[in-house]
Amino acid sequence: MKKIINNPNLIIDQMLQGLVKANPNKVELIEDSHVICRKDLPIKGKVGLISGGGSGHEPAHAGYVGDGMLDCAVCGDIFTSPTPDQILKAIKKADSGEGVFMVVKNYTGDVMNFEMAKDMAEMEGIDVDYIIVDDDVAVEDSSFTTGRRGIAGTIFVHKVLGAMAKNGKNLKDIKSMADKIVNNIKSMGMGIKACINPMSGNESFNLSDEEMEIGIGIHGEPGIRKEKIKSADEITKELIDTILRDYDNIDGDFVVMVNGMGQTTEMELFIVNNYLSDYLKEKNIKVLRTYVGNYMTSMDMAGFSISLFKVDDEILSLLDEDVDVVRS
Amino acid sequence: MKKIINNPNLIIDQMLQGLVKANPNKVELIEDSHVICRKDLPIKGKVGLISGGGSGHEPAHAGYVGDGMLDCAVCGDIFTSPTPDQILKAIKKADSGEGVFMVVKNYTGDVMNFEMAKDMAEMEGIDVDYIIVDDDVAVEDSSFTTGRRGIAGTIFVHKVLGAMAKNGKNLKDIKSMADKIVNNIKSMGMGIKACINPMSGNESFNLSDEEMEIGIGIHGEPGIRKEKIKSADEITKELIDTILRDYDNIDGDFVVMVNGMGQTTEMELFIVNNYLSDYLKEKNIKVLRTYVGNYMTSMDMAGFSISLFKVDDEILSLLDEDVDVVRS
Repeated sequence: MKKIINNPNLIIDQMLQGLVKANPNKVELIEDSHVICRKDLPIKGKVGLISGGGSGHEPAHAGYVGDGMLDCAVCGDIFTSPTPDQILKAIKKADSGEGVFMVVKNYTGDVMNFEMAKDMAEMEGIDVDYIIVDDDVAVEDSSFTTGRRGIAGTIFVHKVLGAMAKNGKNLKDIKSMADKIVNNIKSMGMGIKACINPMSGNESFNLSDEEMEIGIGIHGEPGIRKEKIKSADEITKELIDTILRDYDNIDGDFVVMVNGMGQTTEMELFIVNNYLSDYLKEKNIKVLRTYVGNYMTSMDMAGFSISLFKVDDEILSLLDEDVDVVRS
Repeated sequence: MKKIINNPNLIIDQMLQGLVKANPNKVELIEDSHVICRKDLPIKGKVGLISGGGSGHEPAHAGYVGDGMLDCAVCGDIFTSPTPDQILKAIKKADSGEGVFMVVKNYTGDVMNFEMAKDMAEMEGIDVDYIIVDDDVAVEDSSFTTGRRGIAGTIFVHKVLGAMAKNGKNLKDIKSMADKIVNNIKSMGMGIKACINPMSGNESFNLSDEEMEIGIGIHGEPGIRKEKIKSADEITKELIDTILRDYDNIDGDFVVMVNGMGQTTEMELFIVNNYLSDYLKEKNIKVLRTYVGNYMTSMDMAGFSISLFKVDDEILSLLDEDVDVVRS
């Protein structure tokens, strides 16, 4: 394994310390806990918004901590859920008396631990609500989930709810928006090369030199099938067709994200978008915003995902609001 | 070669088309030329600012086109200088009557072609001036340069001059600032894995499974030496020590960039910054801003560079000004 690291056991710690040192006026770490928080917490009158999960998906989620998005990101070990204790610390830190909303990706460990932390916080008198994001349309159940997995579309949830929380909306309004948008966000990914877990040195999965995996998860979990790698256009068509089939109807306005899994170059992501954009236009699907980049990676996996988000004017204006977060 | 592409000969074209389609309100391509331009050109009363070079360094340079940075980015083939004709088109597009300033990385082909374009533009009555950025302190001459190479520190030049141009400074003031800042920007990089050129399918260089190259260039050009890979902290110390030795004096304020070469994860970049930040503090070097991310890549090369930039209050406030560019 060739990685730019020191002691493998200190990777998460040194990463998060390095992140705080790059943004000393914006964020801090809760002592003895891998929780990245805004420095100005609690913010009077504002619902706290937190998220988290296993590390290895940078910039998710610590990169989205800051004004207009998350108050805290709870960071587990690589591809490992954070503990209920850690999540509870984040809840307490983010609460200003208005309650805390949690954005949870649908993985069995994450859901269990965030729910447990919610129970613990409620015993301490803090209102907590949450949403489970399950935007991945590739498979119905997976190695780590009952039901669909939560992947890159989660960042849309951070953005929309983050803007609402900033604007002073209450916990109930935020929950109601969350319920509405998760059904309108659909994603699907593919991989051509596994990532290497720098803590263990292991590859996350195996593919031959000619193979790709369609529908792969952000931890390298199996998707729909392995097959010989095709052209960018053919792959893109398959992903977007599967996503579109999952909508009851495709009238209305959409925003699109082409998300890199880590190793995939911007060059390739824009080539994907070149076809995707034309294809959606052909189908008379109105795309109002397009985001291309690394939003939720799988370390150095090569591959990409497409996320589609059906929006209305209110959601669009929340997506468009300025943020001031760690992500550079 | 496993890449998410279509026809290798269409890579640059499809990438740039995909970039424009993701930012349809912000940028456009000059017809039949790989030049990405702001859509609102020419901007009355503003000096035009252009840059460019070989492709394969995304987000550089097309990602920096937009309000507050570049007016046009001239994109060559992968690791290949753009032609004088292309550059001339960018100059003419960016000129509003106030002249055009060019930011050129120090590679023999780039310098020759940008200078030729300048001569052609001047024959058409357009004032053109330029700066050659040579921030790489690793080697004095290289396979593609006489003198030092221009690498990631170039982005600081785009930012500072972009803010000045936006604020209505004239060509002479911009040139004078450019002359001042290039001497204060110093960078050095390293690589642990070559990139693959998707047009040719070739690896840019060879390293054994245990080796790294210290002082590598952004096209995989040889640096100082190959040696067994060390810890992140040891590598970081060597790069920053070499950079610091190159300054006449290290009193004053600095900003820092930890730039990923493409495949290197944010996790690793923040681990680098963790040590770097402590080390600079120990040396009483005052770091006012830290930028960590992929600013100038070498496609999917693994490795990173560090750039240091000695700043004063004026420069810092130009760096801090808001921009609205393609880079997501």
